[in-house]
Amino acid sequence: MIHPNSRLREVWDIYIILVTVAAMVVVPLQLSLHQPVQGLIFVYEVVLSVSFALDIILRFRTGFFHENHLVMDPGRVAKRYLKTWFLLDLLAAWPLFLLHDKALATVVPLVRGLRILQAHRLIRIGRGNTFLRELHRRYSVNPGLFRLGYFVVLMMLAAHLLACGWIMLGGIQDEPDRTTKYVKAIYYTITTLATVGYGDITPQNNLQRLYAMGMMLVGVASYGYVIGNLATFLANRDIVRANFYKKLEEVTAFLRYRSIPSELRAQVHAYYGHLWESRMGQDEASILGDLPESLRVDLALAMRRDLIHKVPFFREAHEELLKDVVMALRPVVYPPGAYLIREGEAGDCMFIVSSGTVEVVSRDGSQVFAEFNEGSFVGELSLVYQSPRTASARALGYCDLYILTKQSFDFILQKHPAFAEHVMEIAAQRKREVDARSN
Amino acid sequence: MIHPNSRLREVWDIYIILVTVAAMVVVPLQLSLHQPVQGLIFVYEVVLSVSFALDIILRFRTGFFHENHLVMDPGRVAKRYLKTWFLLDLLAAWPLFLLHDKALATVVPLVRGLRILQAHRLIRIGRGNTFLRELHRRYSVNPGLFRLGYFVVLMMLAAHLLACGWIMLGGIQDEPDRTTKYVKAIYYTITTLATVGYGDITPQNNLQRLYAMGMMLVGVASYGYVIGNLATFLANRDIVRANFYKKLEEVTAFLRYRSIPSELRAQVHAYYGHLWESRMGQDEASILGDLPESLRVDLALAMRRDLIHKVPFFREAHEELLKDVVMALRPVVYPPGAYLIREGEAGDCMFIVSSGTVEVVSRDGSQVFAEFNEGSFVGELSLVYQSPRTASARALGYCDLYILTKQSFDFILQKHPAFAEHVMEIAAQRKREVDARSN
Amino acid sequence: MIHPNSRLREVWDIYIILVTVAAMVVVPLQLSLHQPVQGLIFVYEVVLSVSFALDIILRFRTGFFHENHLVMDPGRVAKRYLKTWFLLDLLAAWPLFLLHDKALATVVPLVRGLRILQAHRLIRIGRGNTFLRELHRRYSVNPGLFRLGYFVVLMMLAAHLLACGWIMLGGIQDEPDRTTKYVKAIYYTITTLATVGYGDITPQNNLQRLYAMGMMLVGVASYGYVIGNLATFLANRDIVRANFYKKLEEVTAFLRYRSIPSELRAQVHAYYGHLWESRMGQDEASILGDLPESLRVDLALAMRRDLIHKVPFFREAHEELLKDVVMALRPVVYPPGAYLIREGEAGDCMFIVSSGTVEVVSRDGSQVFAEFNEGSFVGELSLVYQSPRTASARALGYCDLYILTKQSFDFILQKHPAFAEHVMEIAAQRKREVDARSN
Amino acid sequence: MIHPNSRLREVWDIYIILVTVAAMVVVPLQLSLHQPVQGLIFVYEVVLSVSFALDIILRFRTGFFHENHLVMDPGRVAKRYLKTWFLLDLLAAWPLFLLHDKALATVVPLVRGLRILQAHRLIRIGRGNTFLRELHRRYSVNPGLFRLGYFVVLMMLAAHLLACGWIMLGGIQDEPDRTTKYVKAIYYTITTLATVGYGDITPQNNLQRLYAMGMMLVGVASYGYVIGNLATFLANRDIVRANFYKKLEEVTAFLRYRSIPSELRAQVHAYYGHLWESRMGQDEASILGDLPESLRVDLALAMRRDLIHKVPFFREAHEELLKDVVMALRPVVYPPGAYLIREGEAGDCMFIVSSGTVEVVSRDGSQVFAEFNEGSFVGELSLVYQSPRTASARALGYCDLYILTKQSFDFILQKHPAFAEHVMEIAAQRKREVDARSN
Repeated sequence: MIHPNSRLREVWDIYIILVTVAAMVVVPLQLSLHQPVQGLIFVYEVVLSVSFALDIILRFRTGFFHENHLVMDPGRVAKRYLKTWFLLDLLAAWPLFLLHDKALATVVPLVRGLRILQAHRLIRIGRGNTFLRELHRRYSVNPGLFRLGYFVVLMMLAAHLLACGWIMLGGIQDEPDRTTKYVKAIYYTITTLATVGYGDITPQNNLQRLYAMGMMLVGVASYGYVIGNLATFLANRDIVRANFYKKLEEVTAFLRYRSIPSELRAQVHAYYGHLWESRMGQDEASILGDLPESLRVDLALAMRRDLIHKVPFFREAHEELLKDVVMALRPVVYPPGAYLIREGEAGDCMFIVSSGTVEVVSRDGSQVFAEFNEGSFVGELSLVYQSPRTASARALGYCDLYILTKQSFDFILQKHPAFAEHVMEIAAQRKREVDARSN
Repeated sequence: MIHPNSRLREVWDIYIILVTVAAMVVVPLQLSLHQPVQGLIFVYEVVLSVSFALDIILRFRTGFFHENHLVMDPGRVAKRYLKTWFLLDLLAAWPLFLLHDKALATVVPLVRGLRILQAHRLIRIGRGNTFLRELHRRYSVNPGLFRLGYFVVLMMLAAHLLACGWIMLGGIQDEPDRTTKYVKAIYYTITTLATVGYGDITPQNNLQRLYAMGMMLVGVASYGYVIGNLATFLANRDIVRANFYKKLEEVTAFLRYRSIPSELRAQVHAYYGHLWESRMGQDEASILGDLPESLRVDLALAMRRDLIHKVPFFREAHEELLKDVVMALRPVVYPPGAYLIREGEAGDCMFIVSSGTVEVVSRDGSQVFAEFNEGSFVGELSLVYQSPRTASARALGYCDLYILTKQSFDFILQKHPAFAEHVMEIAAQRKREVDARSN
Repeated sequence: MIHPNSRLREVWDIYIILVTVAAMVVVPLQLSLHQPVQGLIFVYEVVLSVSFALDIILRFRTGFFHENHLVMDPGRVAKRYLKTWFLLDLLAAWPLFLLHDKALATVVPLVRGLRILQAHRLIRIGRGNTFLRELHRRYSVNPGLFRLGYFVVLMMLAAHLLACGWIMLGGIQDEPDRTTKYVKAIYYTITTLATVGYGDITPQNNLQRLYAMGMMLVGVASYGYVIGNLATFLANRDIVRANFYKKLEEVTAFLRYRSIPSELRAQVHAYYGHLWESRMGQDEASILGDLPESLRVDLALAMRRDLIHKVPFFREAHEELLKDVVMALRPVVYPPGAYLIREGEAGDCMFIVSSGTVEVVSRDGSQVFAEFNEGSFVGELSLVYQSPRTASARALGYCDLYILTKQSFDFILQKHPAFAEHVMEIAAQRKREVDARSN
Repeated sequence: MIHPNSRLREVWDIYIILVTVAAMVVVPLQLSLHQPVQGLIFVYEVVLSVSFALDIILRFRTGFFHENHLVMDPGRVAKRYLKTWFLLDLLAAWPLFLLHDKALATVVPLVRGLRILQAHRLIRIGRGNTFLRELHRRYSVNPGLFRLGYFVVLMMLAAHLLACGWIMLGGIQDEPDRTTKYVKAIYYTITTLATVGYGDITPQNNLQRLYAMGMMLVGVASYGYVIGNLATFLANRDIVRANFYKKLEEVTAFLRYRSIPSELRAQVHAYYGHLWESRMGQDEASILGDLPESLRVDLALAMRRDLIHKVPFFREAHEELLKDVVMALRPVVYPPGAYLIREGEAGDCMFIVSSGTVEVVSRDGSQVFAEFNEGSFVGELSLVYQSPRTASARALGYCDLYILTKQSFDFILQKHPAFAEHVMEIAAQRKREVDARSN
């Protein structure tokens, strides 16, 4: 028995779908133009019959899923297939070349027409599993776009079939050239389906009129379907950006109404602009929060490892410690001029600079003592010594920082005693520098 | 008096609607083609009149709802009916066969035309109660789809009426054959409504031109309505899947921007893929949380009974105990390689394996002691003996587990003392095995 | 000075809009058909001039809002008007009858054409205040529907203007009858705008071709606008129902996937069906929570006063007490067979039956002691005497109940001592009944 | 090297885009009408060649962004450019005037046609950075609208190119005048794209028919795209208003179903009406909560500074104190007649009147002691003296108030001792007034 998700099954499914499409294109065309089954066409018919016959055999040997359980029992598989598509498939697989006999000439078109019944394969793709599973596996094709593209292919086939039908109904008269006949027919079909309706070709009898009416209804319906799908697709495309703009629109309306001064409005807009460019306006916490812990740790490590390695504290830290640290860091953005810490206040957190520049300044902000860039840490002394902040620090431009709270810091020190010692050393050295500066 | 929701009323409503549709199809056609009322047509008219007359009588005997209260008082029913649809219904019920007299020949078409007024019945379906109540009862037809299908039927009827009107206005001249005349008229109507407009039939005088303009406006409006409804319907179809893809799109954008290594990205995607296939990406807790307690317990039992029965602990538990257990379980997913428990840590929960395989391994993960499959439980020793974890356990592939926290476990043991003893026995036996292994 | 929201201003605004519409319909028609200004037309022109002149005067006397502050200073009003619409209005108000002189015959059409400039009034309605304020005041017209209706009126006017322009360009040749000429022109315009395009009337020179192209683009754009608006409107229509169906769809998908037995599925669906019919699937708490306290109390009183008055406890309660009670009640639904209370459990709440029937039963549910209907209360004894439940109670069908927790109950008793005594009496009497029953 | 975001680069980008558009308009037109390259056309060609050649040079000197990192290395820039657009750009920059030779006459059209390949520039705008960055910087253009406008421009160009193609295919025969020939061609193209399809110009051979079919498909697709974009744009336009109406719709449905008396319904609607007009139905807290602290303080100051300055308490307060106060204020709305405080109750907050009037009344509400307007504060005595409320206060009309809770008040007094003294003085004075009144 063959597993329904096996590689063989997948390849064969795609092959048989291509064969079906080819059959649906060629067979109706030949029938409508009354071309005899000979030469290449004959070979083609043999290939069709053999392919479809093979497919029937394979279907009897392929398991299926019933309520998420795999069924591989040949009896149940056969029973299920016989009850569903077997008859249709058998009709389409009829070995037409056996009929290659003048006596049976009148039956041939009928039997060939039955091949169109294989259209059921194409319709099944829409709700099918093989293709959608592939899409799941790769997550790169938007399902709305896929549905649309698939529908366009279906419409092309439908237009082709309608054009062949139009020729059979005698819609294109007095046209000896076969190519022109078909081009005129497909041109008429498209003109009608697209609701353009030039009127240079029009139905001439009641049957043709009814046929044309059917086409128009198909046209309207599929038009509506395409537009509806496009609207849905466009609305959902780039959902992240759309949500961000919705948020921004709300903020803008708020600012406009409250008649906030334009300078302050510009600052708020600039903040959101920075947020978008640096973080795409997404809440990291909510994304990570939905993942299981092991993935969450790996993601946090991947995002912050480079930064952490720049921090002297952590340079020689082992993996376990790093994981605890990256999970404890919380990202935060400071706009230009905003104060991270103020001299004299109690310190309950330290900062690691991810991007941008932080200035250490005097209490009134007039004097700049130092500048810290990517990978630096700020405010760790208060954490270690429980002392009030010894200086103020503010963002020079937009600063992306990570906050490490006293609580998390103490928890990590407690868990990793060797690291605690290391921290004390570095902090003592830094304190000496600061004390030297303040004297 | 008849209850407005009774079976009789429902059947009659459907019958009278079918009669109305039939009347709206046949009567205008006959009028426009000037067919005399005789033979089958006469019988048909009798049926119409009798049906509509019967309906009037039934309406006088059917109660109605006023602000959610049933009103069955004949006086109030009569008063309400007389004030609303009675006159229209009476006109439509006119016993036309009484007029079957040459002297009254000129009045007949007029009286027959009044039957079209019964269209109000069809329009009422749209906001009606009978049909929508049925839909509520079964919850299988999407209301958007129903609205669309209903609208298509209305449009078909409208096209038919417009075609009859077009014939009456003399739009199809020089056409002796009645069938061709009607086909040409409906063909012209559809061509116009679908905005195809071949131009092979065009209005020839001002009245016809105004009529055609009206048709075009109807066409544009109903086109817009169909497309709008389709767009809404397509956007809401399979809302669960759509929400999942939105979520996935956000995660993908996040990963892309943060330049997460492709291997890790694949892991996150695989996690969501597993989530979708195993749980449809839905939060079980939020679904259950909206239900009343009794249903919540029944649902939890239905989902977990099979699993619980595989756990030796619970095999002989009585119903009351089972309910407490299933309500305390919390589903959780572990990706391949993720650790459920680590040797030496304090244990605050136990796991029941719902699907997948859990490996019990040595501290460094190099040695595999045991494998647990569906129905096994892991980590129960720490719960019973308050001891640290005696081994590590990790997921082999994707594992769907249920967590039972220490708090819930203690609560259950306390409530069911007999069960507590049973647990102690099993745990003691298992502990002996583990001790044996560790020696 | 006139207040911009005064009744006079409102009436005049509506009058001047009607006059403007009339002017836009009549003037271009006359110009295109070269009708002389005489008889009724002359009177009409006088009315137009006088109305527009009066409007200019009124505008100088009407205050306006600037950033939510009313400005009634004549100087600022005049300055603002002179800077915006004054010139256009003056051109449109030109007293045309003064020009009724053959010498000036060539200027007349030009001056009359200027009246079309008053179109700016109609466009301003779209973002206007008068109409939208009215809508706010009544909250009955959906803004999406209003926008759509307004756009349809604009499109009708546009079609009319385009038709007049088509006549002026000589699009309808060899047509002596004026009525037919206009009908043909508007018919051609609608045929083009609706993208039907029969082709019986087509442009004959480059100017006409460019004009027709412009019309087509207008047609496509407005078509898209109508469909877009319709889609938005249909999506937002009946948002309460839509949200409920989304919820239901999620639940159905959940049940389907977890292969819940069909009987249980039916129960869940029935529960949601009841929820919808009895409460419209809305969360009362969230609606009330958004309102200020005084309105919240009034609403709760309005919804529950009838019920409260049926409860003997509260029959003679004064207003203040009632308010405290209704605010403390929490609505809850029990499905058929669900137990409200179980014999022997601790009682932490009482129930008031809002609709449906509650049975008091023996511990095993086999014996029914009593039935309680609308206005009854259940479980009050445990609240008063701190004793365990003396009997079980379950819902017979769907029951809408209000819960009063012990905490709220004690708070109310403490606040209203007189009521506390009253409760004790009734409870004592009831306890005697129960004790009698249990003996 | 040039920075990709530099001003020079931006200006040049816009210039080269304009040149490209001009090339795409003029070149195909000349080719299709077989106009020789001479006179102004020759100058034009020289400008084109030079511009495109200059652009090639500039591109070799412009850095680019790779995963958010700026790359300015000439080698990598050159390598990247050579691998992507270099060849296309070189073909388009071909110095055509060198070919101004009769011997090469047959090559010229071919080389000129290559200029159309520059269309890639226009398509890149859609996902481009220069324009979108500008939009970000200003936040005034809705991206949906921009996308739509950009698409309309593309469609115009496409229509132009299709028209030129139609002329080349011989679609417009027997037309000596060049202008008329082009007008006819563009008219035919628009008629087809807009699906109007008069049928006065129709394809005459198979090639033309295939070309027309292609146009129709383009027309349908772009039609759907425009409508889909419009629908999305209209749905997202004024998202604040839309959300408010959704909320209102829910409330209205709730009130309707619960058969709330119409007077009370009107009050609820009036409340929402006031909410919309005074605050746009937005939750100030959620808007401010998303901003960093420094911006939050600045916004709160900007919104409330005017009000705070009217309060005598705070008139002389310094900046630091003001910031603490504005951050502690919480906005609240009281409907007419609602009581802010009731005599005898414990006081846990004070109110500052932002707009509207508050009446101080006797316990039963019959007697009015005082009225407070914008900038007044109410209920501060209970905060200072921990005493119960000495009078009741209620809203006269709708009142927008700010609440300051006891907790925040105490925190501020503690932090600013000088201010605490000041408060005590004012309160003591006010208490004397109140005591005088009550005696």
